[in-house]
Amino acid sequence: MTLTSFSQMVLPSLEADIQKVVATSTIGNDQSLTDILAYHFGWNIKGSQPGKRIRPLLLLLATESCGESWQEAIPAASAIELLHNFSLIHDDIEDKSDTRRGRRTAWKEYTLPLALNAGDSMYSLAYISMERLSQFKSEETTLQSLRIFSQTCLNLTKGQHLDISFEDQDQVSIAQYWQMIQGKTAALIASCTQLGAVIAESDPTTQEAYRQFGLNLGLAFQVHDDLLGIWGDPEVTGKSAASDILTRKKSLPILFGLEQNQDFAALWRKEITPDNVKQLAATLREEGAFDYTQKQAALLTEKARNYFQETGAQGEAAAVLEELMNLLIKRKH
Amino acid sequence: MTLTSFSQMVLPSLEADIQKVVATSTIGNDQSLTDILAYHFGWNIKGSQPGKRIRPLLLLLATESCGESWQEAIPAASAIELLHNFSLIHDDIEDKSDTRRGRRTAWKEYTLPLALNAGDSMYSLAYISMERLSQFKSEETTLQSLRIFSQTCLNLTKGQHLDISFEDQDQVSIAQYWQMIQGKTAALIASCTQLGAVIAESDPTTQEAYRQFGLNLGLAFQVHDDLLGIWGDPEVTGKSAASDILTRKKSLPILFGLEQNQDFAALWRKEITPDNVKQLAATLREEGAFDYTQKQAALLTEKARNYFQETGAQGEAAAVLEELMNLLIKRKH
Repeated sequence: MTLTSFSQMVLPSLEADIQKVVATSTIGNDQSLTDILAYHFGWNIKGSQPGKRIRPLLLLLATESCGESWQEAIPAASAIELLHNFSLIHDDIEDKSDTRRGRRTAWKEYTLPLALNAGDSMYSLAYISMERLSQFKSEETTLQSLRIFSQTCLNLTKGQHLDISFEDQDQVSIAQYWQMIQGKTAALIASCTQLGAVIAESDPTTQEAYRQFGLNLGLAFQVHDDLLGIWGDPEVTGKSAASDILTRKKSLPILFGLEQNQDFAALWRKEITPDNVKQLAATLREEGAFDYTQKQAALLTEKARNYFQETGAQGEAAAVLEELMNLLIKRKH
Repeated sequence: MTLTSFSQMVLPSLEADIQKVVATSTIGNDQSLTDILAYHFGWNIKGSQPGKRIRPLLLLLATESCGESWQEAIPAASAIELLHNFSLIHDDIEDKSDTRRGRRTAWKEYTLPLALNAGDSMYSLAYISMERLSQFKSEETTLQSLRIFSQTCLNLTKGQHLDISFEDQDQVSIAQYWQMIQGKTAALIASCTQLGAVIAESDPTTQEAYRQFGLNLGLAFQVHDDLLGIWGDPEVTGKSAASDILTRKKSLPILFGLEQNQDFAALWRKEITPDNVKQLAATLREEGAFDYTQKQAALLTEKARNYFQETGAQGEAAAVLEELMNLLIKRKH
């Protein structure tokens, strides 16, 4: 089994399940709220690509690799995808983003008040989806999953709070950066792998290994993404060269560069334009930010791999889970 | 026991519990997210009055009147108040409201992105609070409470969706109005009374009677509020005379008036100013909107009273619950 064949096996069930849950947002025979959610997902829109569903795939693979069938984890997998998409709808409002996946963002298409509220609907639907776990599992397991889910939600908002706050802060420490990505990126991925083990009713040590595996995978993924945001190939990333410098994103290499307080930091305080951004990226690399960030990514990848070994993941699903891990860490875009 | 003495008995525990839950929004030793939530609640702000906590009081009284001690329902009561306040933070953004309880709204004070996200944090905290029910109750009861809670959340967003949509619609039917207030106002009050019976582990018939009691109480409350929004005494309501006409709110009397398609409807299509608003209110009354709305309020009140009888509410708490019902329906402001 490969990631492709596993995806082909599970994604139709997952998509059908998500659509079934979203359909309950119909108000009598009024579809207008459901339409906003469907638009965000890109359903029934010509040329729209479905999402890669990486998070639910992680969850379903974790479940299978603990020896439980993925079908029993579908309510949780849908919940994770709904939660992720709720956060995208709200993030787009908070960041004033006009486009996502090549289309207008929900708030641009439907107005801010309706999209904000539709995001809240999606959040409620995520919980409604998760509560259905009790169709397959004990009430104890369902409740444990809900507790993990709620803590993940809270952590997501903590990470987002820091991310928004960083924009207006001159001084952001690397310690604050780790706190931010732990909430904003890694918490959700950690809960995917942990929930797989919880739903399979593995022992607490195994559950913790799965959680740590996901947490470090999420951190490694983000740090790698930070590297690509400055030194990635524009033809592969689909973004302009050194785009994170141009948008003044407080990513790890940039925070490292600012802490050195040398030429990069001096240039950063002046105007940044498409003309001088390559110079900034080169200076930042000379001051050691590339090596530092790559080393952090390598350390986190190593940790993720070690925890993956500790999980004792078994069977064909374990191999596919490893394939997905490698894809996330070594990806070029 | 009176409502005042019951409130004095339970509110200190409730407030302490809400504060304990909100404190978990601290990020490491960074209080800045918690500060937004505390600001919204008015904590540590000179001259700020605490909220009346009507919804949690309803829940605690329903629990007691089913023969269970209110202490066991505190996690749910805090959850309801957190949910209510999350919805206020987001509503203020959606409605572009500048002030609440005499202070700047959260988004005016902290920027839209940070307040929107803090609302999401409050939503997560509501679930975290509700999940603590299992400290006192079985996992089955906890899970049933969570399911009711999630459906309530979804219904709130459906009601809010309709309310926002109505603003830009020329034609809103009275049927749509009922659908809107069922979600926006009555769903939360219905869940308060229902959850009381669920936490007390009453039989399903009793739970349903409590739910219907709350639902009709919530509807009656809203219809009564609509009356006051036009014909209430400005000195008592604290709003300008006929303020709902001035703000073109699609309230029940106004929708009734528009359906008559007579003089009021004609005046409505023209400019409405503080000078002619009293004339519109008088015309609306002449066309039967006051009598119609009052009759609807009376019918719903009657239904609420009948369901209250059906609940079989017992003891001192039943009398206080009745006192609170009367306060909500007969209130002058």
